Amino acid sequence: MRLMMYSVTFRPKSLTVKVEEGTTILDAAFSAGVLLNSVCGGKGTCRKCRVLTRGSFDSPRCHSLSEKDWESGYRLACETRVTGDGEVIIPEEAEIASHQILTSYFAGDIDDLTPLSTGRYLQLPPPTLTDNIGDMERIVRAMGFGARELKGSLRFLKSLPSILRDSDWKITAVMDEVSRPRVLIDARPGDSSSRNYGIALDIGTTTVVLSLIDLADGRDVAQTSDYNRQIAFGEDVLSRITYAEEGGLETLNNVIIDTVNHMISQAIDESEKSIGPGNKVLRNEITSMSVAGNTTMMHLFLRLDPRNIRYEPYISTVNVPPIFRAKDIGVDIHPDAPVYIVPGRASYVGGDITAGVIASGMNKRSELSLLIDVGTNGEIVLGNSDWMVSCSCSAGPAFEGGEVAAGMRAMTGAIERVRILDRYDVKYSTIGDVRPRGICGSGLIDLLAEMFLRGIVDRKGRIQELSTPRIRKGEQCLEFVVAWAGETASGTDGARDIVVSDDDIANIIRTKGAVYSACKVLLRNLNLGFQDVQKIYIAGGFGNYIDTERAIVIGLLPDLPFERFFFIGNGALAGARLALLSAEKRAEARAVYDSMTYFELSATQAFFDEFSSSLFLPHTDIEQFPTVQELLRD
Amino acid sequence: MRLMMYSVTFRPKSLTVKVEEGTTILDAAFSAGVLLNSVCGGKGTCRKCRVLTRGSFDSPRCHSLSEKDWESGYRLACETRVTGDGEVIIPEEAEIASHQILTSYFAGDIDDLTPLSTGRYLQLPPPTLTDNIGDMERIVRAMGFGARELKGSLRFLKSLPSILRDSDWKITAVMDEVSRPRVLIDARPGDSSSRNYGIALDIGTTTVVLSLIDLADGRDVAQTSDYNRQIAFGEDVLSRITYAEEGGLETLNNVIIDTVNHMISQAIDESEKSIGPGNKVLRNEITSMSVAGNTTMMHLFLRLDPRNIRYEPYISTVNVPPIFRAKDIGVDIHPDAPVYIVPGRASYVGGDITAGVIASGMNKRSELSLLIDVGTNGEIVLGNSDWMVSCSCSAGPAFEGGEVAAGMRAMTGAIERVRILDRYDVKYSTIGDVRPRGICGSGLIDLLAEMFLRGIVDRKGRIQELSTPRIRKGEQCLEFVVAWAGETASGTDGARDIVVSDDDIANIIRTKGAVYSACKVLLRNLNLGFQDVQKIYIAGGFGNYIDTERAIVIGLLPDLPFERFFFIGNGALAGARLALLSAEKRAEARAVYDSMTYFELSATQAFFDEFSSSLFLPHTDIEQFPTVQELLRD
Repeated sequence: MRLMMYSVTFRPKSLTVKVEEGTTILDAAFSAGVLLNSVCGGKGTCRKCRVLTRGSFDSPRCHSLSEKDWESGYRLACETRVTGDGEVIIPEEAEIASHQILTSYFAGDIDDLTPLSTGRYLQLPPPTLTDNIGDMERIVRAMGFGARELKGSLRFLKSLPSILRDSDWKITAVMDEVSRPRVLIDARPGDSSSRNYGIALDIGTTTVVLSLIDLADGRDVAQTSDYNRQIAFGEDVLSRITYAEEGGLETLNNVIIDTVNHMISQAIDESEKSIGPGNKVLRNEITSMSVAGNTTMMHLFLRLDPRNIRYEPYISTVNVPPIFRAKDIGVDIHPDAPVYIVPGRASYVGGDITAGVIASGMNKRSELSLLIDVGTNGEIVLGNSDWMVSCSCSAGPAFEGGEVAAGMRAMTGAIERVRILDRYDVKYSTIGDVRPRGICGSGLIDLLAEMFLRGIVDRKGRIQELSTPRIRKGEQCLEFVVAWAGETASGTDGARDIVVSDDDIANIIRTKGAVYSACKVLLRNLNLGFQDVQKIYIAGGFGNYIDTERAIVIGLLPDLPFERFFFIGNGALAGARLALLSAEKRAEARAVYDSMTYFELSATQAFFDEFSSSLFLPHTDIEQFPTVQELLRD
Repeated sequence: MRLMMYSVTFRPKSLTVKVEEGTTILDAAFSAGVLLNSVCGGKGTCRKCRVLTRGSFDSPRCHSLSEKDWESGYRLACETRVTGDGEVIIPEEAEIASHQILTSYFAGDIDDLTPLSTGRYLQLPPPTLTDNIGDMERIVRAMGFGARELKGSLRFLKSLPSILRDSDWKITAVMDEVSRPRVLIDARPGDSSSRNYGIALDIGTTTVVLSLIDLADGRDVAQTSDYNRQIAFGEDVLSRITYAEEGGLETLNNVIIDTVNHMISQAIDESEKSIGPGNKVLRNEITSMSVAGNTTMMHLFLRLDPRNIRYEPYISTVNVPPIFRAKDIGVDIHPDAPVYIVPGRASYVGGDITAGVIASGMNKRSELSLLIDVGTNGEIVLGNSDWMVSCSCSAGPAFEGGEVAAGMRAMTGAIERVRILDRYDVKYSTIGDVRPRGICGSGLIDLLAEMFLRGIVDRKGRIQELSTPRIRKGEQCLEFVVAWAGETASGTDGARDIVVSDDDIANIIRTKGAVYSACKVLLRNLNLGFQDVQKIYIAGGFGNYIDTERAIVIGLLPDLPFERFFFIGNGALAGARLALLSAEKRAEARAVYDSMTYFELSATQAFFDEFSSSLFLPHTDIEQFPTVQELLRD
C-alpha cells in the first residue's frame, strides 16, 4: 500500500515539507530543519514539544495539556500524526535555538602550548644528483627527526611530490604530534603555519558542546552547542544502551556523528566573526580533535558495542582508546587528523570525569579535593596528587533541563537567578537579559532554595497551599508560578505561565539527594568527612555559575565555607581543551587513569540509606547543615 | 555505432568467448583466461604470442613470421584483430604456464624467529566488580604490556566484546609486532595460535614471486610466481613511468594489485598440499606481508606518483615507507595485516637490492664483497659491514626471457644448461626434464660461452658462416639452431626450431657488458679492482644456478677464482622473507639504508667508455680475463 503524502507548513518560519501520512509532527519538523525541544525523546512525558496545530492531524488526548489548550489546537508534536495537509505554529520555547550561550569553563594553566597537531613552514633545499634522498626523507631531515620518528600516511605520500614541486619546495608541514612515530598529515604550498585549528568536544548524554580553537595561540575561534539528538532514542545512558542492543547501534552512531558534523559546520561559519570577513576556517585546516564524554557516549561515538556497560560487572570495550583518524570515525575535518579521546576510569566514570579532574587541577595539588560533576549521571572524584577514588550515581537530568516541565539548558532566555521577596513576589534574571523561556539548573537551585526559605515548600519539598495566586492546583498537583505568561518570551499568543510543580521539585530533590549521598558515602568509605575536604570543584551544565549558598540550602552541596567551592562549569569541555593544547595535560589525563580507583557505590545499601535521608531539604539530619539551620531560625 | 560481437574459441583448451569486433587475439585470450606470452607488451616485437588462426581475422603482414608460417595461418596475437567468428590454436610455448618453477634462494640465517605478526593464546580471567578494567585493557594486561605499548584498531575493538564473551575469555590474540605501539589486529575464539601465516613478495619489473610462509616455524607453505602483467604497458621501468605520467597510474596499480591478489588465491589453494586435505590457509590467517621491489615497482604498488624517478635528479616519493595496512593497499589478506616494505636507497637502487644485501649477509661481514643483481635493471653493491656503495645500470631483460626470441623465464621446459660438442652437436638439459620450449638466463650464458669457445661466434659475437645445418640465414640475420623443431615441446604440428640469432646475441652482450662495466667503474671510483673483492654474490632470475666458468667466458663476471662466487638466486624474495621473519633482519635492512651511498654512474663518460670496451667476448681488453685467454689458446 502506498502512503499518501501531505504538506505541512511550520510557522513562523513558513517552512513547508511533504511527508507521508502518519508521520509525527516531531519528525516532520526535523525534516523541515526545525529542531523541536524533546528532552524525553518523544515519549510524550516532557511536554516540551507543545505546538499549535491547524488542519488535519490525529493525536491521542493528552492529559498533560489543559482542556483549554486542547480545544485551541495545542498538541504534543511527538504524539501527533499527519493525516492531511496542515499548519503548525511553534511557540518559541518549543524550538531549540541554534546558537546557545555556553557555560563558562575553567581554563586551567597551560605552561607549554603543545597541541595535538602543529603546522610548520619549511623551506627545503631542492634535490640534486648528490642530494637525492626521497621527498619524504627530505621533510624528515628538515624537521630534524630521525627517519623512524616521523611517517607519512599513504594519502599524504600520494599528494607529496606535486605539492613540493608546485610550491618550489616551500611548504607548510602539518604534523600529528600525539602519535609515535609522529605522522605528517598534510603538506600545503607556501607558509600557512598560522592557520592550524583544532576541536575540543564534550559529548554529553543530553548536550554536546564544541569549541573550535586556534592551535597557534590556544584561543577560541568559535563555539557551538546542541542537544545530543540521540535523546530521541532514550534520555539516559541505560536507555541508549538498550536501544543499541536492540539493533540501534548504527543509528545512534550516525546521529551523534551527524550532530557533531553539523556543529563543525556551524563553528566554521562562525569562525568568520573571529578571523575576519570572507576568511573562514577551512575544513582541512582543522587538523586535530580532542573528545571527552562518558563511557557510553564514547562507545556510541566510535560505534563500539556498549552492551556490557549495562550489565554487572559493567565492562567497557576500551578505557584508554588509541589515537584514531577523523576519516575512520566519520568526522568531517582533515581526514588524517588525529582524534584523541580522554581516557576514562570505568564504565560509569568516563573520560568526561578525567577531563574534569585535569581541568580542576586537583590531581596536581596535595590538599584533599572533591570534584562533583552533575550531569545526567553524577560522578564524584575524591583525592589529591597522590591518590584518587571515584564513584558515580544516577542523578537525572533535572539541572540540564530534563524532568522539570519548565526546565531548559543554560541558554538565552533561561532564568538563571531567582529571588522571592515579600508577598511571594518573584525576581529573576535571564541569560541574555531577554524575556524568560524556562529555567536552567542554577535557576532551579535558586528557586527551590528561595521557596524553602520563604516557607513555600516544606522540608519534604511539598508546596504549601498559601494564599497567593502564584500557588495553584495544576493538572496533577500543586504548582508555583515563577513567571506569568505575559512576562514570557512567547508573549500573549498561546503563552503559558512558567511554573514549578510538586512533581518537578521531587525530581530536583532526587537529583540533589543522589549527588550529596554519593559524596558522603565515598568519604565515609575512606573514613573521611566533608570537613576534611579542602576544595570542592563543581562541574555541570547548571548555568554560568551557581549560587553556592543556595546550593547548600537545598542540600546539594555540603555545608562548608564558601571559599572552598570552585565552579568550573563544563569540566569535560575544559579538560578536552587542555588535552587538545598540551602534551603535559594529556600525560596528566593518563596518570589520572592510572592512579584512580573506582568504587561501585551506588548499588550498596549504605548508598540507599544515605539517599533516603537526603530526600529532604536540606537533609533529614539537619545537624549536617548548621548554616541552613541558622537561616531557618531567622 | 554498435560494434558486432563475435565468438572466438581457443584450442586446445576449447574456451570460447564473445568479443567485440576489432579486439586483438591477445585481449580476447585474456578474457578467456588464457595468458599469452608477450614480454614486449603487445608491441609486435617479441614474437612470443605467435598463434595459429582459423576463421575471420585481420592482421598486418608480420615480417618476423616466415612466408610459410604466414600462409599456414600463423599470426602474432597482439597484432591480429577479430573480424568474425574464429578459432585460435595456441602453441605450448606461447602460453604462460600458471605454475612455474621458482628460482632458488639463499635462506640466510635467522637466529631469532620474530615475525611481523604473531598469534598468542590467552586465557583471560573474566571480569568482576573488583576487576573491572575494559576488555582491551584486560588483553593488554594479560600480554604483559604497558597500556601505551599495545593498541587495537577500531575494527578490532568493534568485534572484541562479543568474541571475548562467546569464547569464554579464551582467545588467540594476533598482534602486529612491527608497529610501535604494537597493534592487535585480530582476536579469534579458542587456541589457533599455530595458524598464523605471512607473505614474502618480490615485485619485479618482469616477474612477481610470492611465498606463503608459516610464521610459527618460518617454513614455506606455498609458492607461486607470475609475469608482472604491467608488462602490457611497457617492458622496463622507464616505459611504465611514462605510462603512469600519461594518466595510467591507476591502471598500473590495479594491474599489480590484481596480479598479487590472484597469486595469493593460488597460494591459498596450494597450501592444502602442505597443510593437509581440506585444510587450506584462510585469508584472515595471513596476518602480515613483507615486500621487496625496485623503487618504481614500489611506487606503482602503493599508487604513488613515480614521475620524478625518471627525471634528473631522479627522486622517489619515499625511500623508507612506513607500515601500511593491507586494506589500505588493497591486498586481500587480513585487512589490518601490517605491510612492511623493504627500504630502498635510491630511485635506481631499491628495496629489492637492500633485500638482496641482507639475504647475502655481506652487510655483516668485514671482507669486501660485491653484490650483482641482474634483472631488467642491473644493480651493484660494493662494501662490507662498515660501508657500502651502490650503483645501477640499464641491463635489459635478456636473462629473464626478454629481448631474445627464444628466451624464456626459468620455468618448466626452459633450457638451463648447454654444451656444444664436436661437429656442433648441441647437448642441453631443461628445467623439469621435459622437451624444451625456450632458453632461460643460465642457458643463454652457457650457450653463448659454448658458441664462443667453439668458434661459432667471434669476439664481437657475430655468428660465423660455418658448414653446419645449424647455422643458417634467418629472416634478418644469421641464426644458430639450438634445438630442432622435432625435439621441442610443441612436437611436429607447427613446431619451430629453437634458435639464437646475431640480434639475440647482441642483446645478451649488451646486458653482460652493462653489468660488468658498472662493477668495474664502481670499483675504480674507490680505487679498487676486482682482485680486491673477496666474495661476489650473484642474484637474478637466470635459472636454478649459473655456471660461473661460462659466465666468466662471456665476460659477465670478472675472472676470479670460482670459490669467490655465490649464487643467491632471487635475492629480493630471500630478503623479503628474512624481513618477514626476523626483527634483526628488518633492523639490518634499515641499517643498510642508512649506511649505503648511491653513485649515479651510468650517466658518466667513464661508464660509457667502459661499456663500449665490454661489448666484446669476453672484453676488448682480454688481459682482464686470463683464464679465458688460456681457454682460447687451447
